[in-house]
Amino acid sequence: MRIDILSLFPHMFDGPLHESMIGNAVENDLIEVGVTDFRDYTTDKHNHVDDYPYGGGAGMLLQPQPIFDALADVQTKHPSKGRVILLDPAGYQFNQTVAEDFAKEDHLTFICGHYEGYDERIRSLVTDEVSLGDYVLTGGELGAMVMIDATVRLIPGVLGNSESAPGDSFSSGLLEYPQYTRPADFRGMKVPDILLSGDHGKIDDWRLEQALKRTYERRPDMLKQLKLSGKARQMLADIQADASEL
Amino acid sequence: MRIDILSLFPHMFDGPLHESMIGNAVENDLIEVGVTDFRDYTTDKHNHVDDYPYGGGAGMLLQPQPIFDALADVQTKHPSKGRVILLDPAGYQFNQTVAEDFAKEDHLTFICGHYEGYDERIRSLVTDEVSLGDYVLTGGELGAMVMIDATVRLIPGVLGNSESAPGDSFSSGLLEYPQYTRPADFRGMKVPDILLSGDHGKIDDWRLEQALKRTYERRPDMLKQLKLSGKARQMLADIQADASEL
Repeated sequence: MRIDILSLFPHMFDGPLHESMIGNAVENDLIEVGVTDFRDYTTDKHNHVDDYPYGGGAGMLLQPQPIFDALADVQTKHPSKGRVILLDPAGYQFNQTVAEDFAKEDHLTFICGHYEGYDERIRSLVTDEVSLGDYVLTGGELGAMVMIDATVRLIPGVLGNSESAPGDSFSSGLLEYPQYTRPADFRGMKVPDILLSGDHGKIDDWRLEQALKRTYERRPDMLKQLKLSGKARQMLADIQADASEL
Repeated sequence: MRIDILSLFPHMFDGPLHESMIGNAVENDLIEVGVTDFRDYTTDKHNHVDDYPYGGGAGMLLQPQPIFDALADVQTKHPSKGRVILLDPAGYQFNQTVAEDFAKEDHLTFICGHYEGYDERIRSLVTDEVSLGDYVLTGGELGAMVMIDATVRLIPGVLGNSESAPGDSFSSGLLEYPQYTRPADFRGMKVPDILLSGDHGKIDDWRLEQALKRTYERRPDMLKQLKLSGKARQMLADIQADASEL
């Protein structure tokens, strides 16, 4: 997969693109990443990329010309089809399903604004307007990094087996059950006996029950979309009965 | 505000903490940021910070000892009260209200896991378990950066007037109306005439209507929580009537 990022702050990506999972995916030729400073494309003699909004108002807006020309150059150099993604609070919400869709593409291009809004005409360039969540960020850079991370880890070969936990939240549809590792007694805080019992049937049941309980308590909305086994349905009914007794 | 980050990948923060708004806030002494590699605190002779889960299963879990001791050290050096935040998909969802709460604190400490899950006992250290959204990331680092960005920009003095748009999505409760800047005609794509009219009453009405329309089309859930003026209610009723005619 080819990933392009259009940004006024290319150095923000220095750490995240070279460390850890993304860095490894680049080194192993599983992805190729380019960061383009679209200020390099402005035809403004003072190198400006923004200007005041028509009709008045505070703040500056990114002008269409530098972004149009930067994107055209990227698409000439890397003509494979794919998505052009505008990071924008008015976009649809990024989630795991979107990451799965992105992971199937050959080319993702992220357009990151910063501080300012976008001139509306920039939206005509993109296939997707996507928001990270209901909060305001100073730019699209961090949003692009998050979406790239969530996407790239789904590309076959990127995660080793030891790193990909099959019990990942959202892929199972339930939140993760409580997990414990060494030592069994850490400063008086002990691992539940059942996990030391060696009885794998009972351990599986306990984990399913704990995952259902945590999801019921914290994210009941996730339970609605889920097809549960008969055993899980019975456990959930018991959890709900216990909760209503309190 | 003091911000501490506990992470196994401190270099991921190199770019984001030194560029742009966060970099400026550090330079202007409005915030102070420390990144602590909790691997430095492990008592394991092979420098390990993770181990297999009790009860079996794939993946490795972060052990309690390095994180307990790294946090204790941070809290001894910087004893001001505040929040200790665990980045975790099972946490409550980060949003603008959470950012506003965080911005009032003297000290925020983010604990970032990576790849693995956490030993359950680590949760006993924290005041908040927070999730960025319904997607799986390889680590908490990017989530911490996003939360820091959304929070720090709310600290008085961090954003200059020219950078803080009063029409920010989520602060007004509506999505942003379409915005335009120079040139008025960009390769045949023209700015709406009304924005060039100089009639500020009409421009304000157009912008309100466009913001309502965009919010109605893309995020109707946001309208439910909003107290609208009489004029806005009438506009919204017209928008709804137009939509139902299609």
